[in-house]
Amino acid sequence: VSAPDGRVVVSIDVFVEGRHFRREWLTSYDVGRRVAAASMADIAAMGAVPTALVVGLAMPADMSAEWTDGLADGLRDEAAQCGAHIVGGDLVAGDQVTVAVTVLGDLNGRAAVTRSGARVGDVVAVAGRLGWSAAGLRALQAGQTDGPLVDAFRRPVPPYDVGPFVSDLGATAMIDVSDGLAADLGHIARASGVRIDVDMSASRTLSTDGVTDDDLLTGGEDHALAFTIGAGIALSDGCSIIGHVREGDGVFADGEAIFGGHDHFS
Amino acid sequence: VSAPDGRVVVSIDVFVEGRHFRREWLTSYDVGRRVAAASMADIAAMGAVPTALVVGLAMPADMSAEWTDGLADGLRDEAAQCGAHIVGGDLVAGDQVTVAVTVLGDLNGRAAVTRSGARVGDVVAVAGRLGWSAAGLRALQAGQTDGPLVDAFRRPVPPYDVGPFVSDLGATAMIDVSDGLAADLGHIARASGVRIDVDMSASRTLSTDGVTDDDLLTGGEDHALAFTIGAGIALSDGCSIIGHVREGDGVFADGEAIFGGHDHFS
Repeated sequence: VSAPDGRVVVSIDVFVEGRHFRREWLTSYDVGRRVAAASMADIAAMGAVPTALVVGLAMPADMSAEWTDGLADGLRDEAAQCGAHIVGGDLVAGDQVTVAVTVLGDLNGRAAVTRSGARVGDVVAVAGRLGWSAAGLRALQAGQTDGPLVDAFRRPVPPYDVGPFVSDLGATAMIDVSDGLAADLGHIARASGVRIDVDMSASRTLSTDGVTDDDLLTGGEDHALAFTIGAGIALSDGCSIIGHVREGDGVFADGEAIFGGHDHFS
Repeated sequence: VSAPDGRVVVSIDVFVEGRHFRREWLTSYDVGRRVAAASMADIAAMGAVPTALVVGLAMPADMSAEWTDGLADGLRDEAAQCGAHIVGGDLVAGDQVTVAVTVLGDLNGRAAVTRSGARVGDVVAVAGRLGWSAAGLRALQAGQTDGPLVDAFRRPVPPYDVGPFVSDLGATAMIDVSDGLAADLGHIARASGVRIDVDMSASRTLSTDGVTDDDLLTGGEDHALAFTIGAGIALSDGCSIIGHVREGDGVFADGEAIFGGHDHFS
């Protein structure tokens, strides 16, 4: 694998059937798209471009070749969204379908963006969807089988390009929203030693009909990118300013503690 | 992770409890050493030096912290044998202990050695142990709990340095012996379109007391490095010439087909 930068960023994620996905709700193609998206979003959140994926798969010996073919197709097609390729893998027998995805990425000369660089006075911005996947899961659990929220659950669309783009603009901290906005901004707030204030009405522009405020704040798996950056820097159309970095600690939504301090949600 | 060569080689392996290891026979420290060794041997067999590992672990929620600490220590200590480091990981809940290990390696300007370059007239050489681990597993199954063979099963010692060393000498094909000498030389023979003849008496110098010829030819998991290289090139002390590359196909031991043609062993 080419590493023109002379450095490579790397991330691994493990997905287990029954915990991270269910075969009754997702085709293997969807599982492939979904696990590749989740893994590549981590790389984008460092400001890097995914270049190559290696995939380890444990599964029962009686699984069909169609299932693994669909998984491979989904992985390949999602990787192609970033110009990345599947370059290797390992397939072994196991009792439970378990997929391990390692993504390599290239920084193209950039410093890696971490969670710890947010500064008092920065704005907090998000690109991508908030709460759609969580609302889609609830719809599936209620028996619904299609619609935009169910589609959002099946097929997250992380804004991969935004990662390197806002890194170049000077993003000070970044994370992909996989545990929910409150928790993931909480990771930035804690690592950076700051307080984050979220404006709910601005955040709701990234949700849609059927997404509750709870989905918006605690729903992960849309893999939006949340980042902090100096105030007054012009962002791209896909980025919405939803809050501010202040002195203190914890995350607050319209002044109410949602992570750290008085934690209502976990 | 630094990639001074401007390229990075990468490999993933998945290990499942009950299939690749048993907790009653191995401490978690041994599991860590063992899975890191197996994964890094793949990288050495390309002629590269392992630089970084990322590890994904799925395991039941009731596993002890001591178990995972031991695993992490074993991974770290085996990685250190190559000067490599554990740079990331993911820990998730799963029904069955499953470890996915991705290793990155640096070629330091070398071309990657593959399985397909063996040429008629080359010699076949091996560095490392043959059959020890298989004999050790049999000893464990028979109730033995220590001794050199059991130790060899618990703690393989791949000759990591030999990979880059013989790549520099011009090795034409290389593989780490994980499926057994017959099968792994068979992979080289098939990929290279050649026949490989193995001299059993020369091969036995890499086994030891208690290792049968069947262990030697079909036992994997010692992670010896088997390679082909032009005749007459001086090898290092750890390398033994055990055979020759000829026109044809299949692998033969003292003239008897052991892989391809009349396959006695699988």
